[in-house]
Amino acid sequence: MQSKAINFKDKFTKFSEQWSPRVIAEMNDYQFKLVKVEGEFVWHDHPDTDEVFIVIEGELNIEFREGVVTLSSGELFVVPKGIEHKPVAATECKIMIIEPKGVVNTGGETTDLTAQNNLWV
Amino acid sequence: MQSKAINFKDKFTKFSEQWSPRVIAEMNDYQFKLVKVEGEFVWHDHPDTDEVFIVIEGELNIEFREGVVTLSSGELFVVPKGIEHKPVAATECKIMIIEPKGVVNTGGETTDLTAQNNLWV
Repeated sequence: MQSKAINFKDKFTKFSEQWSPRVIAEMNDYQFKLVKVEGEFVWHDHPDTDEVFIVIEGELNIEFREGVVTLSSGELFVVPKGIEHKPVAATECKIMIIEPKGVVNTGGETTDLTAQNNLWV
Repeated sequence: MQSKAINFKDKFTKFSEQWSPRVIAEMNDYQFKLVKVEGEFVWHDHPDTDEVFIVIEGELNIEFREGVVTLSSGELFVVPKGIEHKPVAATECKIMIIEPKGVVNTGGETTDLTAQNNLWV
């Protein structure tokens, strides 16, 4: 068992790469990942799982084919499985993603933004 | 699909009962629950699942048989399955719990603090 709480702001100081999720904790077969995002991601979906976004600092838009959802600090959104989405942030935004272990950030697409999986910080 | 982000602070204004988890979102078969806590909870464990605590506002101690972990705002802790724990807060603390749907707040014990399950806010 860990012996200390995990501090989001402290963990964010330990990496700078954008669009590169860093695992900070596991709960059963789920992972909690911190990500720094800026600019436009790629359209993708996760056919087998919902995906939760929580904004820690900054503002994130999640674009859908039929609209956009804006998240500010202290807000959460569940992207349902199989729904195409594209995260976009005008300036760097710090977020936490929660999803099952093994989920690839770009879904079924492999692009320049496809990140290495299971990197811990 | 929801059409708007879920704002933690806004949701906390919608109930006042302490130790009574309110579901704000579901991801697959997991739930995100907001809870206002103050004072001492009961010793309990969840034999079948890990449980994640995130402090939104205030300070929470999670007592274990072999020590205590203190969480402040913006901090996370995973209580492993089967590990006895007792949440304690000197003053009201606002937290989010993440765990599978159906988990009872007092684990295998039924006490005055056993809350109704699956209350949404």
